[in-house]
Formats: sequence, C-alpha cells, structure tokens
Amino acid sequence: MHKKLFVLAVLLLCVGAVSLFAQESIEALGFSLDVVWLFIGAILVFIMQAGFALVETGLTRAKNATNITMKNVMDFCFGAIVYWALGWGFMYGKDALGGLIGTSEFFHSPMEVNMDNGNFFKSWFFQVVFAATAATIVSGAMAERTQFKSYLIYTCFISAFIYPVSGHWAWGGGWLAELGFHDFAGSTVVHSVGGWAAFMGAIVLGPRLGKYIRGADGKVSVKAFPGHNIPYAALGVLLLFFGWFGFNGASTGIATVGEGGIWSGLNIARVSVTTTLAASAGAAAALIFSWIWFKKPDASMTLNGLLAGLVGITAPCAVVSAGASVIIGLIAGVLVVLSVEFIDKILKVDDPVGAVSVHCVCGIFGTLAVGIWANAPEDGLVGLLHGGGAAQLGKQLIGILAVGAWAAIVSFILFMAIKAITGLRVTPKEEMMGLDLSEHKAEAYAGFQIFSNM
Amino acid sequence: MHKKLFVLAVLLLCVGAVSLFAQESIEALGFSLDVVWLFIGAILVFIMQAGFALVETGLTRAKNATNITMKNVMDFCFGAIVYWALGWGFMYGKDALGGLIGTSEFFHSPMEVNMDNGNFFKSWFFQVVFAATAATIVSGAMAERTQFKSYLIYTCFISAFIYPVSGHWAWGGGWLAELGFHDFAGSTVVHSVGGWAAFMGAIVLGPRLGKYIRGADGKVSVKAFPGHNIPYAALGVLLLFFGWFGFNGASTGIATVGEGGIWSGLNIARVSVTTTLAASAGAAAALIFSWIWFKKPDASMTLNGLLAGLVGITAPCAVVSAGASVIIGLIAGVLVVLSVEFIDKILKVDDPVGAVSVHCVCGIFGTLAVGIWANAPEDGLVGLLHGGGAAQLGKQLIGILAVGAWAAIVSFILFMAIKAITGLRVTPKEEMMGLDLSEHKAEAYAGFQIFSNM
Amino acid sequence: MHKKLFVLAVLLLCVGAVSLFAQESIEALGFSLDVVWLFIGAILVFIMQAGFALVETGLTRAKNATNITMKNVMDFCFGAIVYWALGWGFMYGKDALGGLIGTSEFFHSPMEVNMDNGNFFKSWFFQVVFAATAATIVSGAMAERTQFKSYLIYTCFISAFIYPVSGHWAWGGGWLAELGFHDFAGSTVVHSVGGWAAFMGAIVLGPRLGKYIRGADGKVSVKAFPGHNIPYAALGVLLLFFGWFGFNGASTGIATVGEGGIWSGLNIARVSVTTTLAASAGAAAALIFSWIWFKKPDASMTLNGLLAGLVGITAPCAVVSAGASVIIGLIAGVLVVLSVEFIDKILKVDDPVGAVSVHCVCGIFGTLAVGIWANAPEDGLVGLLHGGGAAQLGKQLIGILAVGAWAAIVSFILFMAIKAITGLRVTPKEEMMGLDLSEHKAEAYAGFQIFSNM
Repeated sequence: MHKKLFVLAVLLLCVGAVSLFAQESIEALGFSLDVVWLFIGAILVFIMQAGFALVETGLTRAKNATNITMKNVMDFCFGAIVYWALGWGFMYGKDALGGLIGTSEFFHSPMEVNMDNGNFFKSWFFQVVFAATAATIVSGAMAERTQFKSYLIYTCFISAFIYPVSGHWAWGGGWLAELGFHDFAGSTVVHSVGGWAAFMGAIVLGPRLGKYIRGADGKVSVKAFPGHNIPYAALGVLLLFFGWFGFNGASTGIATVGEGGIWSGLNIARVSVTTTLAASAGAAAALIFSWIWFKKPDASMTLNGLLAGLVGITAPCAVVSAGASVIIGLIAGVLVVLSVEFIDKILKVDDPVGAVSVHCVCGIFGTLAVGIWANAPEDGLVGLLHGGGAAQLGKQLIGILAVGAWAAIVSFILFMAIKAITGLRVTPKEEMMGLDLSEHKAEAYAGFQIFSNM
Repeated sequence: MHKKLFVLAVLLLCVGAVSLFAQESIEALGFSLDVVWLFIGAILVFIMQAGFALVETGLTRAKNATNITMKNVMDFCFGAIVYWALGWGFMYGKDALGGLIGTSEFFHSPMEVNMDNGNFFKSWFFQVVFAATAATIVSGAMAERTQFKSYLIYTCFISAFIYPVSGHWAWGGGWLAELGFHDFAGSTVVHSVGGWAAFMGAIVLGPRLGKYIRGADGKVSVKAFPGHNIPYAALGVLLLFFGWFGFNGASTGIATVGEGGIWSGLNIARVSVTTTLAASAGAAAALIFSWIWFKKPDASMTLNGLLAGLVGITAPCAVVSAGASVIIGLIAGVLVVLSVEFIDKILKVDDPVGAVSVHCVCGIFGTLAVGIWANAPEDGLVGLLHGGGAAQLGKQLIGILAVGAWAAIVSFILFMAIKAITGLRVTPKEEMMGLDLSEHKAEAYAGFQIFSNM
Repeated sequence: MHKKLFVLAVLLLCVGAVSLFAQESIEALGFSLDVVWLFIGAILVFIMQAGFALVETGLTRAKNATNITMKNVMDFCFGAIVYWALGWGFMYGKDALGGLIGTSEFFHSPMEVNMDNGNFFKSWFFQVVFAATAATIVSGAMAERTQFKSYLIYTCFISAFIYPVSGHWAWGGGWLAELGFHDFAGSTVVHSVGGWAAFMGAIVLGPRLGKYIRGADGKVSVKAFPGHNIPYAALGVLLLFFGWFGFNGASTGIATVGEGGIWSGLNIARVSVTTTLAASAGAAAALIFSWIWFKKPDASMTLNGLLAGLVGITAPCAVVSAGASVIIGLIAGVLVVLSVEFIDKILKVDDPVGAVSVHCVCGIFGTLAVGIWANAPEDGLVGLLHGGGAAQLGKQLIGILAVGAWAAIVSFILFMAIKAITGLRVTPKEEMMGLDLSEHKAEAYAGFQIFSNM
C-alpha cells in the first residue's frame, strides 16, 4: 500500500514540476511578447523622425531643405546620446526631492542583460524615441533662420534635461503621477513640452525676413511663404500617422495581461480605433473649416488638422469611446486652424509649419479631454460628461500648468542664454541666401533651378 | 490512511489548479499575440496609403501633385469615419436577407473593452485599412481631371457601402462565403472592387484633354503624359510591397494555432514566401516583356508589373506553392502590360496610372488562380492543375462575376448621379491650369519652375 | 481502497494530460511568436531597399534618377527569384566539401507547411532580404555609368552565388561557424561582401566622365558631383536606420527563450540600445569631424557617418555594452570620412555615394570590434579590452580575410567577364545625356527643368 502511495506521490511531483515549468515558460513567453511589442512601438515612433523631417521640409522653402533635414536627423542622434548619458537618469533614475527628479543610472552601461536591469533594456529604446519626438517638434517653429550650431546646443538640452524632468513628474513616478494626472501617451508630457519650447524659440528668434511688413499706411501685412513640396508634407503626415499607432498603442507598456488583470491586448485594440478616428476627424474638420473660411480646401491646414487630431487623442486614447474620439478629433481640427491664424495674424509670431498650434495648443486640449470624456471607471478615470465631476479635470489642469510653466520658462532662459553667448540667428544675408548654402555650403537640389528669393 | 489520501487529493487539486491557470494564461497570451499580429498587419496596410499616394503622384503631372496627395490622404480620413459609422455594420453586422448585407453595429462605440465585443476592437483597425485600400485605388484612374468635392462624395460612398456589401458576401459570413468562394486577402473583395469602380470612373469622366487627338487623316493619335517623379513612383511601389506583407500575411487573422489545429504561424511564413516571389516575378516579367516589345526597360510598366504580381497572389497566397507563385507572378506581369496597352490604345479609356489593369484585371486573374493552382487539400481547396477539377474554378468565377457586377453597376450609377447633380469634372481651363492652382489655390512645388502645359 | 486509488490515478492522469497539453500549447505559441518576430525583422530589412534607393538617388545627379531607382527595385526582384532558385540551396542546403557550400533545396517548393520543412518557411523571407541588401550595396558605387543590362546580370550572380557561398561559411554551418567566427548580423557576411564587390565594380568600370581631370600642369583635380536631392538622401538614411533595427534585432533568430536558456527578448532589447547609440555616435562623429576638417557640417558625410555607425555595430551589437557601442560608433564615423577622402583623393576610385567606405571599410572595422569590445563570457566571446586576449580577434581576422578574398576575387572576375562579353559601361555620349534618357527613354522629372551637364 505504501509503495503504491509512493509511486503516486512521485507521479504527482512530476506533474507538479511540469505545471510549474509551464507556468515559468508562460511568464518567459509573456516577457518576450512584451519586449517585441515595445520594439514595434519604438520603431514606429522612430520613423516619426522621418515624418517630422518631411513635413517641415515640405512646408518651408527649397533653399533651406538640407538644413531642415539635417536638423531633424541630428536632433535624434545627439538626443539619443545625451538621453542615454543624462536624460534617462533624470527621468527614470532613483527619485529625489520628493518626486521632482531622478538621480541615478547616468551613462548606464550594464553588460549583463538579466531581469534585474530588465527595465533599462526593455524600456530605453521606447523612451529615447519619445524624447526625440519632444525635441524635434521645435525645429519646425524655428525653421529657416536658426544657426545650425545653436540648434544642436538647444536640442541636446531638451533631450538631456527639459523633457526628462517633467517626464519624471508624470511618468517616472514623480509628483504628477502621485496626484493622479493622466496623460496616456504624452499630449502634455511630449507634445506640449515640445510645443512650448517651439513657441519660446519662435518668439526669441523673431520672424523670418519679410514675414511681417509695415506698409506706408502703418498697417502690417502678413506674407505667407508657401512650402516647396506638398507631397513631402503629405508623405510626412502619413508617416507620422503610421508612427503614432506605435506612439499611442505601445504606451500600454505591455501586450500581455498586466497588473490587476488589465487586458492590454484589448487596450491596444481600443487605442488603434480611437487614434484612427481622431486623426481622421481632425483632418476632415480642418479641411471643411478651412474650405468654408478661406474658400479653398487648404492642403497644409488639412494636414495640420490630421496632426491636431493625433495630438488631441494622445492623452485620452485609452479611456474614451470611439464616438468621443471622433468629437475630440473634430474639435482639434477646428482648433488648430483658429490657432494657426491667431498666432500668425494676431500674435504675429512666425511659426513656419504651425508646430505650436499642433503640439502645444492641441496638446493642452487633449490633456483636458481626459477630464471631459474619460469613461474608464475601472481605472478611476471618469470625466465631466460621464458624471465624474470636475475632479479629474482639475488634476489635468494642474499638470498642464506645471509642465507648461517648466518647459516654457526653462526653454526661454535657454534661448536667451544661447542668443547672448553664441548667437541664435543667422545674418540677414545668410537668411536670404538660404541656410543650405550659408550653413552647409551645398544646395539641396543641385541641378534644379529654384527661386530662392520668394 | 484516509488522511494520507486526503493530503494527496489536496495536492492533486493544487496541481490541477495550477494547470488550469496555466491553460487560461496561455489563452490570454495567445489572444494578446493575435492582437499584436493584427496590429502589425493593419499598420502595414495603412502605410499602403502613402504608397498609393506616391505612385499616383509620381506617375502624373507636377501641376496636379497637391490634388492627388490630398485625395489619397482624405479618402482614408473620410473613409475611416464612414466605415466606422456605416461600413462596419454593413460588412460585419448581423446578417440579413440571407447573406446579402449586415445590419447592426452602426456608429459602434462600446466603452467596455472585453471579450464579448472583442471582435469589433480586435478587427476594426485591420478592416478599416482594407476599406481604405479599395477606395484609394480609384483616385489614380480618375487623376488630373476630377473635382475634389465630387471625389470626396464618391469615396465616402465606396467605403460606407459599395465595398462593405460585397465584402459581407465573401468575408462577413454572406452567401459567397457559404458557397466556398476563396479570396484569402482580397484580389476580388478589395482590388477588383476598387478596380471596377476606377474603370467606371474613368469612363464616365472621359480622357484628359489632349490625350486622344484625331488628326486631319481621321486617325486618333494617343499621347503619353509622362509622370513627373519616377523616384516617388518607385518609393511608392516599395511602400506598397512593404505594406502588402501585412495585407496578405495578417489575413491569416491570427498568429496562433487556430481552429482545426491550423498553424497560422506557418501560414504566415508561406504567405511571405509566395508574396515575395509573385511580386518579384511580376516585375521581372513586365520588365522583360516591355523591353522586348517597346525596346526599352520601361520604368512605369515594370513598377506596375510588380503591383500586378502582388494583386495576382493576393487571393491564392496561402494555398499555392512557391513555384506556383512564381508562375502566377510572371503571368500577371505580362498581363498588366497587355492590359495597359489594350485599355489605352484599343478601348481608349484614359487611366493615368494603370489602376484598372493592375487592380481589376490582375485581381480577376488572381482570383481564378486559386481555382487553377490551389494545392491545399486540408482546406478543401484543390485547383485544376492538382486534380481538383473545375469545381473551385467555377466558384471563383461566380464570385468574380457577382462582385464585379455589383461594384461596376453601383459605381457607374453613382458617378452618373454625381455628374448630374454636382458635376464630376473640372472645367477645361482648370484642367490646363492644373488642379493644384484651380482646386487648392496653391502649387505643390513653390519655388521650382515647372512646365505645366506638357 | 483500491477503488479510491484508481480514482486518484485517473484524476492524476487527467491533470497530467492538461499539463502536457499546456506544455505543447506553450511550444506552439512560442513558435508563432518567433515567426512573427522574424516577419517583423524581414519587413524592416525589406524596407531598407527603399532606403538604399533614396540614398543613392539623392546623392547622384537628376539625369540618372530613374536608372538608380530601377536598379534598386530590380536587384531585389531578380535577387529574390534567384535566391529562391539557387542561393538558398548554396547557403542553407546540405553541407558539402567540408563546410564550403550547401547543395540541396534548389527551387525549393514544398506544398505542405509543417514543422519538418519549418526552417525553409520560417527563415526564407528573413534570409532573402539579407541577400538583397548585400546585392543592392553595389549599385551605389557603380552609379551613373553602368549599363542596366549588365547590372542585372551581375546582381543575379551575387544573390545566387557570391553572397550565399560565404554566407554558408559563417551562417550556414560552414567552416567559419565551426572556427568560432562571430558576425551577429553581418558586418562581414552582408556588408563587406557587398562592399568588396562594389569596390571591384568601381575599379573595373572606371570613374565618371569629368571626375578626375589632369590639368596642363600635370596635376589631377578631383571634381565633386553634388547629389540632386538631399531630402531623399536623408529620408533614405532614416529608412535604413529604421530597417536596421530589424536587421540587427531579428538576427537573434527567435524572440523566445532559446537553447541554453538564452533570453532572446533581452538580447533584442540590448541590440536596440547598441544599434541606436552606435548610429547616433557615427553621425555625430562624422558631423563634427567634417565640420572641423572642411569647415562645414557636411550633409552627405554626416549621413554616411550614421550608416557607418550602423555597419560598425552590426557584428558586435549583441555582445557589447551601451558604452562600447558609443565608442564603436564614434570611431566608425571618423573612419568613414577618412576612407571616403582616401578612396576619392588618393586611390582615385570613383564611388559616387561612398558605398565602399560605409560597407566594406566599416564592415571590416565592425567585425574586428567583436574581438576588441566583446564582453559576453556566457557566449564564450570576450574581446581584447575585457581580458579575452587576441584569440577572438584572430578568428575575426581570418573571417574578414577569407570572405573578403572570396567576394573581391569572384566579383572582379565576374565584372571583367561581363566587360569582355556584353560590355559593362555605357558610351560617353549616353553618360553625358544621362542614363534615364539613354537606357530607359524617359526622364525622371518630366516637366522640371534640370541642368544635366553639371
């Protein structure tokens, strides 16, 4: 009898061992799937660099095309190095000063790849492309008149310090995270940080030569400089749309079932739906609104409307319904047209590609949208329109103001410092000649005849 | 003794619980992997919009470049909204009229994301990009002379109604699915629907000014309008090729082991092989055939040959061998050259980019190819050449005719109605000026000197 | 009592069956994830074709743009067919002659997709895009003067034979694999094979007309032909960077836990980090070095610096630390500038896009880097700087020399044979006219005025 029981027990142990092994294998497999998912997200966000480069190149003049593309390539390259050296540590290092800044893992270079330092290896690639997005937004608003050297100094600063610090507040376990501020993929953390810096940059630089001309009658006439390649701009916007699926989608962090039984797989699906619809609604609204207002279906307004919808849905994409995403997109699409006109015609700040309107204004709107349309009681996120009161809206507002103040003030100081020390702007002669010849000693389109003085 | 048995039983239950938990985790993990897989497929199909935009822009004239790119951006944006509002419901809603149309889930906006409404969330993103592909095919055939407004009306109609209804027949559980019609990724369901509509559009519109000129001798001479940017066209074709791996690959629907023990993973691998080879063979055949016929290795014919191979393998990609895919590609590559010449020179229908030949003609061929080269007895699909007789070929023919009649007739009526109500075509003066200036009040290439009257 | 035991045993068997089923499901799921991972890698490497096409088109003259893009499209298409027909068999077929060549699976066309022929189906797509990369490198160095026909003959040969044979040595279980030569993703196996062939091609062809002109004083002056579209080149480089994440990342082969418990998921993460940093450091170094040397931040040097960093990290990406990858990138970025100048000014070999410097020179450097910076004792790979002595460096050197000799000698013979039989170069008149008109009878930019004689 005992012998039989012994045999049974051994069998039982074997089965148990197989079960535990299965369990362990499932975890390993889940880890692999999550890494693959973040990889997919990261490469998609990476290709947004090409999208930004094409949009900015297409919407500016041919004589500055080399300069713009070089700025977009190099802000990633320098940004990646400084984000590795410093930024990662400020954002995700050990918290200090009560949620204000991270303070470890600078120049992080672990050789052994294991679960203990898994966070760095698993997340760094996905994080660095977000930092690059924030940085590259600025180049558009400062296009066609900034010294290349000064741009490089600036962009290192945003990737190494400005973005990571406010990023730490919201995403690195800092004080905004503690508060309950919700910014799923970065309407505020990424886009409005870039947008505020872009705004300060455009103000400190001043407008392009010939942009605002005071006539004999004392009135200021506003000149539009048409972009030199609309297909580039359209391709760029499609690449940004493409990449944004990773930007928003992979902000789930994982693809597997996460803590509290959250089905990330289904979240990914929801984010894909809301992102598609908001972008589409943004383009449609901007097209129709500009058609009515300006009596023409304006290409650059429409493309900016699409981006506006994307920026607007970035914060709320995981907590709103398909219907709400359409409404958010429509509002963002109208908002961006109004904002572009306001900044250009009323404020007279020269933002050649509309970066401030797209990323700052719609970034703020998208962050507020969480407080209005959120309908995810299981996450404790219920907005105004779904009976959640104004509590979440208040938290969102605090985040917007705090991050906005940080980004605007620090970048303003930075631009003023660069202006004082090395100079920020090229000379008028260089600007007329075009930055390709003056800064890089080479045309972008050798062999083509272009009119550089328009 | 009983006590020992009790201990054993408890242990046993624990082990059992772990096993069941493992089983559940595996299912959850499989679900996540499938979502990730459909996401990958969807973003790849999405970027095909950029491919179409570049091919069509590159193969037409510089004076219409803004217009073409705007059409390609906006047919996605409007298409996504109407496919959400109406199209999804017609295609995948509750079947009505015995397999003819779906009738639920219009303006579908579930907040709760769970397994019950998993189908909408899991599939919508992948489905909407397919709808957009069908719609965007039309823009090429109608390029350089269609009113922008009329194009937008039309494209909404195809995404909301024409594509979803025949899509329901074949993929939404409708009567063609019941019949045993096999169109894996949409040679007929997507490409020939778009192709038929493109054909009707080109007929109703009439040719571009100066395309067919009757000389003093009564003979009609056919003028070729060369495209203004071959690198755009080539980049567009490479982006389409890139995206097609998702189009065909993710039409497996899942990446895991499916019903009946089908190894989707291996199917994905097979589809990748056949898609690569058919596209390559299509390009090679068109290159060599055009080289022999026209005494030059023609760029646009070759690029269309590549697309022809892709359209041809879309239906049979999962049920034919690598060798058969090469043959299918070679035939499609020759066919597209013959068809382009036939439609242009004999029928005198002006299709600026060859969209009808690529998508309609090769879509039909690809659908027939299933009945000829299929060799998948485990799926009950065996074609003529592998001893399956003509049964499958017959079913394929029924699908081709039914879907073709539906798409052609409804789109013809639609174009005639638009022509009567709002007008379909721009004025001759606007056409000469170019649609960028006449429709959008802005050049695509400001600062460049172009010859708009060629 | 016996009855109870019997019940227990039955229960036990049930639990065991569930466990085993779970185990099997996990394996199936892992297989699916691995297929998806290789698919992701393959499509990323595929899109590098577009990257190469754009870089080469952008850095050469407008009159040859159709020709360059056609070469890049067709080397993939012909390459895919011949790699299926012959190349796969030479590379991964049954080993013969003691590790020298594979000899089976030519024209491989299995219908049944199962685990037995899983290797072909799982790997072919990923392998064919690597073969295409090696082949397409050559087109840049031979740009603007090669007959289209001759190029096609050559490219078939590299994809069918030259690349697969040395590929068999290192990756197909051949003698270099046995030796312990480590080339993770192909600094030597792919890039320097392409680079050596490019070098031989440029030598056999001779320089473009007007490139090196001997003055009355007997001195040779070197003319630079500026590229006609820097945004194309920049977009191309960003697409290459994008694709390279798949090139390096998916060279793990799997995403799951592999033999010996290697966590591929973590390896993927590490490769992403090192690839990002090396490319960024390469661009930064080339920018700064060219800025100091030539007194301008040169666009094409910087873009080549980025590619140099990528080629340099391709071999060692999985076995070096983040810090080492920065150093490797910095060295590669300086090296490529020196090499471009050396080959152009001292050797006077005309390589229009710098392909030899990027792919051959930095490919050699990257392969050596394994022997210097490797720090992966668990894989038995420890380089000079981490106390591993010169053993690995020696093995790397053997691989570099063997593969280099093979690629250089065979391709030199091939080019000489083509030159003798069909001719390799166009006539001077055709070259002046541009290859678009002379070879393809069509301009790339119809409607634009270009200066073709610069």
